[in-house]
Amino acid sequence: MQYAKPLTAEDKLELEKLYEKIQSKTATVLGYPVAMDFDYSELYRFLKFPINNIGDPFIESTYGIGTREMEREVLDFFAELFRAEENEWWGYITNGGSEGNMYGLYLAREIFPKAMVYYSESTHYSVQKNLHLLDMPNIAIRTQENGEIDYNDLHDTIRMNRNMPVVVFANIGTTMTEARDDVKKIRDIFKDLAIHHCYIHADAALSGAYSPFVDPRPAFDFADGVDSIAVSGHKFLGSPIPCGIVLAKKTHRDRIANSVAYIGTADTTISGSRNGITPLFLWYTIKRYGIEGLKLRTEKCLQVAAYAMEELNKIGLHAWRNTNAITVVFSEINKSLQLKWQLASDNGNTHLICMPGISKERIDLLIKDILGTKN
Amino acid sequence: MQYAKPLTAEDKLELEKLYEKIQSKTATVLGYPVAMDFDYSELYRFLKFPINNIGDPFIESTYGIGTREMEREVLDFFAELFRAEENEWWGYITNGGSEGNMYGLYLAREIFPKAMVYYSESTHYSVQKNLHLLDMPNIAIRTQENGEIDYNDLHDTIRMNRNMPVVVFANIGTTMTEARDDVKKIRDIFKDLAIHHCYIHADAALSGAYSPFVDPRPAFDFADGVDSIAVSGHKFLGSPIPCGIVLAKKTHRDRIANSVAYIGTADTTISGSRNGITPLFLWYTIKRYGIEGLKLRTEKCLQVAAYAMEELNKIGLHAWRNTNAITVVFSEINKSLQLKWQLASDNGNTHLICMPGISKERIDLLIKDILGTKN
Repeated sequence: MQYAKPLTAEDKLELEKLYEKIQSKTATVLGYPVAMDFDYSELYRFLKFPINNIGDPFIESTYGIGTREMEREVLDFFAELFRAEENEWWGYITNGGSEGNMYGLYLAREIFPKAMVYYSESTHYSVQKNLHLLDMPNIAIRTQENGEIDYNDLHDTIRMNRNMPVVVFANIGTTMTEARDDVKKIRDIFKDLAIHHCYIHADAALSGAYSPFVDPRPAFDFADGVDSIAVSGHKFLGSPIPCGIVLAKKTHRDRIANSVAYIGTADTTISGSRNGITPLFLWYTIKRYGIEGLKLRTEKCLQVAAYAMEELNKIGLHAWRNTNAITVVFSEINKSLQLKWQLASDNGNTHLICMPGISKERIDLLIKDILGTKN
Repeated sequence: MQYAKPLTAEDKLELEKLYEKIQSKTATVLGYPVAMDFDYSELYRFLKFPINNIGDPFIESTYGIGTREMEREVLDFFAELFRAEENEWWGYITNGGSEGNMYGLYLAREIFPKAMVYYSESTHYSVQKNLHLLDMPNIAIRTQENGEIDYNDLHDTIRMNRNMPVVVFANIGTTMTEARDDVKKIRDIFKDLAIHHCYIHADAALSGAYSPFVDPRPAFDFADGVDSIAVSGHKFLGSPIPCGIVLAKKTHRDRIANSVAYIGTADTTISGSRNGITPLFLWYTIKRYGIEGLKLRTEKCLQVAAYAMEELNKIGLHAWRNTNAITVVFSEINKSLQLKWQLASDNGNTHLICMPGISKERIDLLIKDILGTKN
């Protein structure tokens, strides 16, 4: 860093304060879906290079400072986990769930420019932002009590718009209750209404990374009938930098490739310049856990969630959770505790999420706080 | 990382090979606009936390593990550098130039949904990808020999579409020749044609970070008449992770805020979950260089560029560069050397970019290689 001075004492102090804030806030996360048990220190040495996975991960670039090899291994791992047909899928590592969802919707729009998009009212707000950006007409569908899409309402609403191709944006783990929409039931509706021009994108940002390991296995992946799927890397897997994986049927991606070919590029990603550090983090994660480790990790989270539900019920907070969910919903607690434990509330309910790194001890501390406030 | 095993010997070998490849490729970059002299090791300790600058940098989030304070300082620094009116601007740190450009175009579309977008044929291909995604009608304008937009063609073309609001996507440093479109001349065209519904976005991905320090100062910023501006963080400033800064007039951002308010969010960023590490890197960079250091850095690059041009001319390669450009254009050299030095070529010309971290010695090595191949 030629011409650079060391940080001043004042700057150092500011940095120190930031560090302490982040450290203390990390110790009291209970409401955000972020794993906290990662350790990528073995990879820090890569941070001295201008790494950039420019463009399509499957097309070599003249720029050689990248981690495409690792990126492809990560994609391969998840394609298998999400039961994509061999050699019939494509994907890339994104900057987060939102970009993956935008990409899925973009693919859907390119294939069916005149489609109507359906999504449940429990859908994350970023999706409507994306639909607005992509200028796609859309209808919100009622949700059931548990946060899952109301299949009857979906059926009725599609029936009234049978002239239009159908895009369903399915939630595999909603923000508030971790409800999973059932992709097979959605496919049944298409069948019943003789809808052939249809597309399902699975927003599996939250639950995609552990849904393959729970029993019964939810209907959410390629074998169940999705066309594309987005999952977050900084949630269950863990990363200091938001990231995600988007996978789609290869035929869909090829359709986009054609529509952008006149631009003179084979780059069908949204970003262009792309983060090459997060693919390395995700590679490290899948290598170090393997399927077996991820399974154990899932079981541990489910155990902590069962424990949290039990303890919250013991103190009369009407806690419940969806089948195989690591999110526990309970009666809203006071605002200062919500702030301290970074808990989100909605409609009289508060929720906590038992991500990797959240121990039973942390649940106990919350319970103690709640009891302390009650007295 | 509970349930994780250490990397196997095979995985470690793969990682080692990647490291060596990246190291050797970094030693021979001459054609990509990436600084190579950064050192963020003082900040690595932040990488053990799940940092996320979710949503708008100016609105506090319930999620406390972020670096918004530093992000705002970075934005403030560049708002001043780009002569935005005090308190009349807004912005955020993006995942790269592409996202910033998309954001600028998105703002333009929200303000003028029926606009025609004009951009020169030297514009980066990602822009047409963005225009396609945003579904905005657009026309490519001829460029002059040096890569700058042809103002006569722009004038004529706008004149033929005076019924439509005008969005000009201006290049402040094109990919191949580092040409800068003159924002004042573009404003003059609007004036001449009595165009009042107009918007200029400056794609200053490449040259934005050093253009304030060259003399004469190019016409490219808010004081010169842009509505939004995007600059890359991983180019002149330097970062192992692609990033960028987008700034816009506050009134424009407020317009988007209104149009997404019905979604029930004040989040007007594109990403949602946002990288909080790159804002920290950029903060560190501006603190350690300051205006003075960035000026010296700019001068050094210009010196190396002048040297490269001279040396390439000495061996008969017809080298030239735009005023105050750090990009040198010369007669196309053979493919194997292009590959080795990661140089891009277009239309019979090769270009190299004298980014921070590129020494005269590296130029000498290239010259030696070229002479070696000739013999």
